[in-house]
Amino acid sequence: MLRVYVQNQKERGEAYQITPERWRSTVHLPAEKVHATFHDKSNVDLAALGVADVCVGSGFDPALIQRHARKLKLLHVTSAGVEKYLPLDWLPDGAVFTNSRGVHAGKAEQYALMTLLMLSSKFPLLADAQRHHRWAPVLTPMTMGQRVTIVGLGNLGTAVARAAQTLGMDVTAVTRSGKPASHAARVVPTSNLKDAVSDANYVVLTCPLTDATRGLISDEVIKSIPRGGGLINMARGAVLDTTALINALRENHLSGAVLDVFDEEPLPASSPLWNCPNLVITPHVSCDEPLGYIEKTLQSLNENLAQLLEGRRPNINVVSPLHQY
Amino acid sequence: MLRVYVQNQKERGEAYQITPERWRSTVHLPAEKVHATFHDKSNVDLAALGVADVCVGSGFDPALIQRHARKLKLLHVTSAGVEKYLPLDWLPDGAVFTNSRGVHAGKAEQYALMTLLMLSSKFPLLADAQRHHRWAPVLTPMTMGQRVTIVGLGNLGTAVARAAQTLGMDVTAVTRSGKPASHAARVVPTSNLKDAVSDANYVVLTCPLTDATRGLISDEVIKSIPRGGGLINMARGAVLDTTALINALRENHLSGAVLDVFDEEPLPASSPLWNCPNLVITPHVSCDEPLGYIEKTLQSLNENLAQLLEGRRPNINVVSPLHQY
Repeated sequence: MLRVYVQNQKERGEAYQITPERWRSTVHLPAEKVHATFHDKSNVDLAALGVADVCVGSGFDPALIQRHARKLKLLHVTSAGVEKYLPLDWLPDGAVFTNSRGVHAGKAEQYALMTLLMLSSKFPLLADAQRHHRWAPVLTPMTMGQRVTIVGLGNLGTAVARAAQTLGMDVTAVTRSGKPASHAARVVPTSNLKDAVSDANYVVLTCPLTDATRGLISDEVIKSIPRGGGLINMARGAVLDTTALINALRENHLSGAVLDVFDEEPLPASSPLWNCPNLVITPHVSCDEPLGYIEKTLQSLNENLAQLLEGRRPNINVVSPLHQY
Repeated sequence: MLRVYVQNQKERGEAYQITPERWRSTVHLPAEKVHATFHDKSNVDLAALGVADVCVGSGFDPALIQRHARKLKLLHVTSAGVEKYLPLDWLPDGAVFTNSRGVHAGKAEQYALMTLLMLSSKFPLLADAQRHHRWAPVLTPMTMGQRVTIVGLGNLGTAVARAAQTLGMDVTAVTRSGKPASHAARVVPTSNLKDAVSDANYVVLTCPLTDATRGLISDEVIKSIPRGGGLINMARGAVLDTTALINALRENHLSGAVLDVFDEEPLPASSPLWNCPNLVITPHVSCDEPLGYIEKTLQSLNENLAQLLEGRRPNINVVSPLHQY
């Protein structure tokens, strides 16, 4: 029998709670083979953690896991980003870390569709004009034939590529390997990033936050985007040099940007971003939807638990300690 | 030979000027058969108007046309909306009035795609939060299966229907006749308007402004939209009761709206719309694009001029004095 320690975070809201009902409706394995207990991060049960084969949820404390979860074989988080757990040097020997990559793709595609259209119609400029009660029409061309460079071509980047293709845009992707991919006309390795953005109308960030991507979109990279270009960050705040972005918008080097993620979230009221010209801010909503969020993030768990029960190593959505995603 | 009086309006900007170059690149009829002279509204040439067979352009003064353009057979305007010329009782006997309907469809489809996604992701709420430096995430479902009611199913409405279908939405259209149409699952006559909006998530206005549509979207109609719904106006300001809309947004009956057109344009700085909650304002840019605008609005003219040269009555994009569009 597998003992599963489920951890919730009350403060994250109803849509994100793994309730016993949601668990039962998604994890289709006999109760005598998989026994789950439900806990909140605010009230850790060390005894239950000590006998757990599997941990599932969010907000885990690596130090606590390392010290107490001695029997751990699988830790599954209900997010795609795992930057809070890096580096993965605390993971008990033999344990596998899995994430919920892929469940965000549908919503991410719609967000990308909306924000690429916003940038192409100079909406950030129109929103600024509205704030100042100013009528300032700008005619803009349609999106067909415009060029977008997507940094990171995982599930999220592929969703953005689909949106760009719906709009008839030409897609360049930047990936670690630079290997060809079906959703991009051109794939370029990260080492050629500056070249890859140098003819882009829009740059969209969709890479995981790792040691390799922290600060990747530097002042120099931003300056390599052609004048008048736009930028969308759906990845993580720390991938981007925020100060450099603010300067690029203030100096009209970029014509607009949309940020959904920030170094500090919630974005503090004192942040200079709130007043930055030609910037649209959304509060980390680009990829999540309320309906079935937990059910989707638990879907890959079925197969991984079944593998564990057969004595095999779980292999769906495994996070690589080396690549950090 | 046909004498063509071309009238421009300098103040409308470069993209809207019918220059001799644009005329030559679009109107492919021999110069000995069609002779065009170019004028500005600020400096009407009554002698040229008096011998004109055809008038082409914008900003025509009906009284001047009626009094001086005695030979007029065809008047072609480079807009789709003709509300400034209504009623068409001043048109010289036998003259045909044509407009540029249809050229706006591509851009309109992209605007509809953007703004339907804005409403479905509660972007007007997020934009308000940004104005107040407030982090207020709202998770929203994807668009599939949501319901949109489109008021007016001409070229513009059909473009909106295509956008809605891209988003997997269910389309109801409201038209004068209520006859079935290929881009809508359901078509309802204007007499059933309140019923047609009563289960809509979103209502999009795309009808021409005529005696029949002035004030059509009244307080009563707005109240028939389900609580939490959204509204987009891409038609003309006077189709909608602005005060009723402001109240519906203030009282949270509607969750958001996007207006591109207004009773008075430019929208005066004193308008209460600028400060209305959950309202996105764009300055009449939903349907125009700078590239080839004039070339597209002159395209239908070729055929109409050829018909005139053959002694026939022009029949492309004719505005009906009865229906006023």
